[in-house]
Amino acid sequence: MTSGLWITLEGGDGSGKTTQAALLEHWLREQGRSVVRTREPGGTEVGVLIRDIVLHHRGDIAPRAEALLYAADRAHHVETLVRPALARGDVIIQDRYLDSSVAYQGAGRVLDGVEIRDLSLWAAEGALPDVTVLLDVDPATARQRLDAADKPFDRLEAEKSAFHERVRTAFLALADAEPKRFLVVDATQPIDVIAEAIRRRVSTHLS
Amino acid sequence: MTSGLWITLEGGDGSGKTTQAALLEHWLREQGRSVVRTREPGGTEVGVLIRDIVLHHRGDIAPRAEALLYAADRAHHVETLVRPALARGDVIIQDRYLDSSVAYQGAGRVLDGVEIRDLSLWAAEGALPDVTVLLDVDPATARQRLDAADKPFDRLEAEKSAFHERVRTAFLALADAEPKRFLVVDATQPIDVIAEAIRRRVSTHLS
Repeated sequence: MTSGLWITLEGGDGSGKTTQAALLEHWLREQGRSVVRTREPGGTEVGVLIRDIVLHHRGDIAPRAEALLYAADRAHHVETLVRPALARGDVIIQDRYLDSSVAYQGAGRVLDGVEIRDLSLWAAEGALPDVTVLLDVDPATARQRLDAADKPFDRLEAEKSAFHERVRTAFLALADAEPKRFLVVDATQPIDVIAEAIRRRVSTHLS
Repeated sequence: MTSGLWITLEGGDGSGKTTQAALLEHWLREQGRSVVRTREPGGTEVGVLIRDIVLHHRGDIAPRAEALLYAADRAHHVETLVRPALARGDVIIQDRYLDSSVAYQGAGRVLDGVEIRDLSLWAAEGALPDVTVLLDVDPATARQRLDAADKPFDRLEAEKSAFHERVRTAFLALADAEPKRFLVVDATQPIDVIAEAIRRRVSTHLS
């Protein structure tokens, strides 16, 4: 009987999470593993509705309401998708989890990061991934990549770049606090070098 | 300068909240007060979207996700509607608040009532109403009223009536714990007797 494995990918926009998730999925499938690709917010049907409110509602949403909506998405996602997949023995590759909530909310300096973490852990009944890959990249490089991909990223102007610097610092602090769960990778390296580092770490959890 | 007043109405379906809210609003307007009628969930534009997920989504929602969605609605409602109205000096008449969350979740026996209360208080940054009117009625009478009004209420069958009895008990326990905030009214009395009891209590807060 195989046991499931839960891998989350963290990092700012433009850090290469989608590329690395695809490469990791391909490698795992080659080894005959059943893989579930998912994300937060929006990994479930209910989550898509919540994601739509958080990301596309016109007009402001109160900061605590926003944090609670992310937590609601998380609660439903963990209970209805993550736990059953792990019970089946699948490998889950997930784009963003509670570390993103803590890093982004903390960087926004409106709500306390510890409170956000506690809220997420209540939502998920304490569930934490086996491996969290932090793709670390400086905001300027991430911006170049997004520009090259022709993705609009106008939020990253002068004043906002300080925000993304704070997000990066917050992610690194989270990784420092939980070295066993986190793998921090320099995401300015070539794609295959990064992919190999991730595979090496994931290998230790397989079999 | 007048100060605002925040009144919430609690009780099961069929306890007469809507009727009493309308009578109270009429009486307050006669006295020249500016009145805001609102409700949870769904008292704001964002709240309507959240209410739609909670009440109308087909398929189960994880219990913690549901609790977090109610809390998100609450956070947004209190910050964007309740607090500004109180600052303007308005009287708010609100259908349901955190006591409903605690009573219904507690009666459902899935989540802990204390945790639900803490979650709501975090969402609302501790905001509590000046007056909470509990319209207390036994579930059998409430059912007769809903039947007379030709409202479908099929959830109240044999097994479910025990649930509504637990909701009632939970509401009464909340009122016992905060006698200064709560006014408990026997809602089997005539409408005008109930309305007079509410007006008497509200009067003491109007100065």
